[in-house]
Amino acid sequence: MLNIPKARVGARAPAIDLYDLAAELFPINRSLTGAGVRETLQIVAGHVDLTIHEVGTGTPVLDWHVPAEWNIRHATISTMAGRCVVDFADNNLHVMGYSKPVEAVLSRAELATHVHTLPDQPDLIPYRTGYYADDWGFCLPHRLWQEMTDDNYRVEIDSDLSQGALTYGEVFVPGQTNNEVLISCHICHPSLANDNLSGIAVMTALAMRQARLPRRLGYRFLFLPATIGALTWLDRNESRLERVEHGLVLTCLGDSSGFHYKQSRKGATIDRAVAHVLKHSGHRHEILPFSPYGYDERQFCSPGFDLPVGCLMRGVHGTFPEYHTSADNMDFVRPEYLDQSYAVIEEVLDLLDRDCVYERVDGRGEPQLGRRGLYRAIAGQREAGGATQMDLLWVLNLADGRHSLIDMAIRADVPFARIEAAARLALEASLIRPASPS
Amino acid sequence: MLNIPKARVGARAPAIDLYDLAAELFPINRSLTGAGVRETLQIVAGHVDLTIHEVGTGTPVLDWHVPAEWNIRHATISTMAGRCVVDFADNNLHVMGYSKPVEAVLSRAELATHVHTLPDQPDLIPYRTGYYADDWGFCLPHRLWQEMTDDNYRVEIDSDLSQGALTYGEVFVPGQTNNEVLISCHICHPSLANDNLSGIAVMTALAMRQARLPRRLGYRFLFLPATIGALTWLDRNESRLERVEHGLVLTCLGDSSGFHYKQSRKGATIDRAVAHVLKHSGHRHEILPFSPYGYDERQFCSPGFDLPVGCLMRGVHGTFPEYHTSADNMDFVRPEYLDQSYAVIEEVLDLLDRDCVYERVDGRGEPQLGRRGLYRAIAGQREAGGATQMDLLWVLNLADGRHSLIDMAIRADVPFARIEAAARLALEASLIRPASPS
Amino acid sequence: MLNIPKARVGARAPAIDLYDLAAELFPINRSLTGAGVRETLQIVAGHVDLTIHEVGTGTPVLDWHVPAEWNIRHATISTMAGRCVVDFADNNLHVMGYSKPVEAVLSRAELATHVHTLPDQPDLIPYRTGYYADDWGFCLPHRLWQEMTDDNYRVEIDSDLSQGALTYGEVFVPGQTNNEVLISCHICHPSLANDNLSGIAVMTALAMRQARLPRRLGYRFLFLPATIGALTWLDRNESRLERVEHGLVLTCLGDSSGFHYKQSRKGATIDRAVAHVLKHSGHRHEILPFSPYGYDERQFCSPGFDLPVGCLMRGVHGTFPEYHTSADNMDFVRPEYLDQSYAVIEEVLDLLDRDCVYERVDGRGEPQLGRRGLYRAIAGQREAGGATQMDLLWVLNLADGRHSLIDMAIRADVPFARIEAAARLALEASLIRPASPS
Repeated sequence: MLNIPKARVGARAPAIDLYDLAAELFPINRSLTGAGVRETLQIVAGHVDLTIHEVGTGTPVLDWHVPAEWNIRHATISTMAGRCVVDFADNNLHVMGYSKPVEAVLSRAELATHVHTLPDQPDLIPYRTGYYADDWGFCLPHRLWQEMTDDNYRVEIDSDLSQGALTYGEVFVPGQTNNEVLISCHICHPSLANDNLSGIAVMTALAMRQARLPRRLGYRFLFLPATIGALTWLDRNESRLERVEHGLVLTCLGDSSGFHYKQSRKGATIDRAVAHVLKHSGHRHEILPFSPYGYDERQFCSPGFDLPVGCLMRGVHGTFPEYHTSADNMDFVRPEYLDQSYAVIEEVLDLLDRDCVYERVDGRGEPQLGRRGLYRAIAGQREAGGATQMDLLWVLNLADGRHSLIDMAIRADVPFARIEAAARLALEASLIRPASPS
Repeated sequence: MLNIPKARVGARAPAIDLYDLAAELFPINRSLTGAGVRETLQIVAGHVDLTIHEVGTGTPVLDWHVPAEWNIRHATISTMAGRCVVDFADNNLHVMGYSKPVEAVLSRAELATHVHTLPDQPDLIPYRTGYYADDWGFCLPHRLWQEMTDDNYRVEIDSDLSQGALTYGEVFVPGQTNNEVLISCHICHPSLANDNLSGIAVMTALAMRQARLPRRLGYRFLFLPATIGALTWLDRNESRLERVEHGLVLTCLGDSSGFHYKQSRKGATIDRAVAHVLKHSGHRHEILPFSPYGYDERQFCSPGFDLPVGCLMRGVHGTFPEYHTSADNMDFVRPEYLDQSYAVIEEVLDLLDRDCVYERVDGRGEPQLGRRGLYRAIAGQREAGGATQMDLLWVLNLADGRHSLIDMAIRADVPFARIEAAARLALEASLIRPASPS
Repeated sequence: MLNIPKARVGARAPAIDLYDLAAELFPINRSLTGAGVRETLQIVAGHVDLTIHEVGTGTPVLDWHVPAEWNIRHATISTMAGRCVVDFADNNLHVMGYSKPVEAVLSRAELATHVHTLPDQPDLIPYRTGYYADDWGFCLPHRLWQEMTDDNYRVEIDSDLSQGALTYGEVFVPGQTNNEVLISCHICHPSLANDNLSGIAVMTALAMRQARLPRRLGYRFLFLPATIGALTWLDRNESRLERVEHGLVLTCLGDSSGFHYKQSRKGATIDRAVAHVLKHSGHRHEILPFSPYGYDERQFCSPGFDLPVGCLMRGVHGTFPEYHTSADNMDFVRPEYLDQSYAVIEEVLDLLDRDCVYERVDGRGEPQLGRRGLYRAIAGQREAGGATQMDLLWVLNLADGRHSLIDMAIRADVPFARIEAAARLALEASLIRPASPS
């Protein structure tokens, strides 16, 4: 029989300042590979027991190969008179990810084929990558581009694409059982705050928290370059996947939107757990069906793996105007939304960890609550916002070896914590016991 | 093959005056045990073949024990000058159920700890019990209590809690098969008309009716003190529970509210049958999901038994202002509502009894109705409100050994009686036969 | 592995003029049996490879017998002065189907028992039959009947009911597999355009089309006298019924109503396929649950066969005022509605034929689309209204050996053709393969 922790560890506040961590990471030029990813993971490693994996360029990874490592030192567009008009040092979004080195004088027309702007959002720099494009490019505000009317410009990108490695980070917090919860975020976006750093910051704090607590399940936190990072992890951990009981991809957790939870492909307990927590959280939220687009749930939910992994977001990729632009900055994410997101996920993890299937020791009729002091115990709970008598009756009625606590909370339509508190009373009174595995 | 009764016994009117029976029972001081229960059952026994069971105080009953028997002869609160201000003889709600004997002079402040009133309903006497409380108490109108401003009062309760018995009644009307319908009501409330007597009166009339009719199923009518009575019956009849094919708890059937049917825990035919009858009755009604609170369905639907038992009510306990007060009296229940409730349940019992799974003798294509005179037969029925040609086609199409008549009526969305009449025509024409058990 | 046709055969237009064919068939006096049915089938045989079956009068057919063959040459009602007031030669609806011969002078009152009119539609001739009635009758406009005020009339029906045959037609277009799609219409109504000829015309054109195309499935087109024709076919083909994978009864396809699809009794892929096509067609439509009334789906869906057969209509029998009257004529059906109906069913047949269950060759993670040129291929499709990148991702995600293309199209909520195009790209790139049968 497993121990059930009796009390929550303090309030639902992260152990670190989420906004500060995101701000610290913001200036770094992350990409699929390279120095920025390593620097990011080093900062994360200051908070959690992080294993950093390096996988060599060219390593076969399922249907893919690990790409060349990209690093960049300097990139500018200058006038022929030597005035610098676009400088990577000002904003790392200015250079298309995986741009190959270039040093040339181009006519404006030639340059135009390498310039990306957003005519509808003329003050913003777009975020562009060309991982497998063998190309180079600059991203700039459309307004600036319109003001660049010289006949020729000098461009310089001091980058290299070379034999190196793909870098990703992994925190594993073991549990009392072999079953695991897999949580991942992507770490490959440069200075984009919501669509990257919010997930990294929240996940770092969650890993810190889970490491401090007694746990039934193991927790595996993956800091991955998107797609190729997830594929690499899956390739290297295929034999362990059957341990993944629940999974969650985290992204876009710092903006002011309501929550959006995208269900797993197969339909799983994680879907019901997140929906339950969101419903009782009082926060605006929407449940979205699975679709094969988005973040790394695409890989975890591919048909050959079909893991029970959903994706939690506030704003949904592609639907907010700041998405993949320089407006997704540290003003766009707010500390209170980061904290709120953290608190919601913390509660989801508690649900998953504390979920248990009980059965009545003797399920025939209701037990006599009074002689066991349970009416008195319940009256005491009420003042503390704990279980009600009705919650206890639900637990005693549904403890049939088939309903887990999450099932009970959903059927009774009350917060999980109250059902859990009622179950604890029933357990202490020896009225229920964990169900024997069927 | 079972015989199907061809005609209903008269109109859907009870053989006794339900209101008169309730009125006759109203003054009796019922409780969990004692003389009032016995007197009540004696009156019921005047109408039906009732077996009265006595189970000794202290007998172990599942997780409980049969409590001491409570009887009371006299109870008053008087002024020191000898003026009686509260008298149990006026209304048996004045004394908290299971009050232990007392004879004392108390200050008003001391007395206050034993007085129960309803400040929001100052003219009503509340109904209170203290079965396992080892206490005594008086219940009175709040207005009266406010007028009782003397310094001291003399209280007297002449009651005893002694070695005795729990008393319950059982009518069993056997059927052609071993399967049974279990119907129960509670008999432990004193002068409360809707929340007790309506159920007793309707159930008595139903037992009378079922005894007169040919029946496929057995019918077991249980007149039980709530909770401990149901637990006692369950304990003593555990080996027979597998015979319970359907069950219904009856209560609050005399008020003017629409019907409320609370589904069984497991989901069962009774749920579909009651919903079907209510839908086609034209009466206002609402279907409620199972919850582990209410009446003795709590015990029947506990996980160790999980019987297919629902609960039919008009007003729902705790939601009408008269509930558990002196306003739940013979003015609150009306003869027409009692009769209507009786008629609805009668129809439910007919559905259950006449439900049958048929299969076509030869299910390939439609049979030729004309040469069997079935078009003519149907035309004759039409005038009598019987089966239509469409009803007959439904029966012939769904007689596949899997759909029962209730299933057919629900899928065809027509009253059961019409499907039943169509099935009779098809049976007489040898087009269908009862399905062999699978 | 089956070949998948890569392109549609031209636009969705029938190879014959549907309206012209219906108009050609309109004057013929069809009935359950007789010369009119043979003449109708001869005309159909001019377009398709039709096998005409003759089944002798009296042949036992499941619960029925093939009736006598009915033929009629002449029928009139005349005044005693010799003026013809009703003449079968003017409209074959004037005589009740299967009228036995008669030659007599009758009083108006006697005649009245053999006259059918529509008082609410006084200018229309009703359509009546008396297949098993051993009777005779005339059908006329109510207005005409009211003007017929003579005391006596001379009636003459020159018909015979004699040993002959039931005639039906069958086109079988074999496929690459043994599985079949069964499509039927009824051919027993005389000059009724929508409720008969629309189905015959559309089905003839569909049979022509399927014969020209490569096909996975076999297609069996049945031109049947209603009820007895379907029963006869079922009786004679019982051993082959397990090959029927999908089925569709066609009727009332030429009027201006929106589409109505009546689901099969058992629930089947045909129901999902038709609903999907109608949803994405942009046409008004309604899905109706199965009921055991209507056309020959009644026989195909009888419990002993329970075939996966639905029924597609525009207007629903009995709900439009022209139904079974002389107003269901060649003005009531319009070429554009016939063509639209044809196009919808053509698309349904394509869905059924092209439906396939795929599995990923390696389902672990997403494949690298770029190095296979699939991003470029998709971009090319977009201009042609083909598959989008999202469609391709859906196919790659749902190709798990359990989802067919129809399942994918429904889950992705995009037209089947786009999912099919995406599957073709994935197949050509060797990313998916037809699933091995489980």
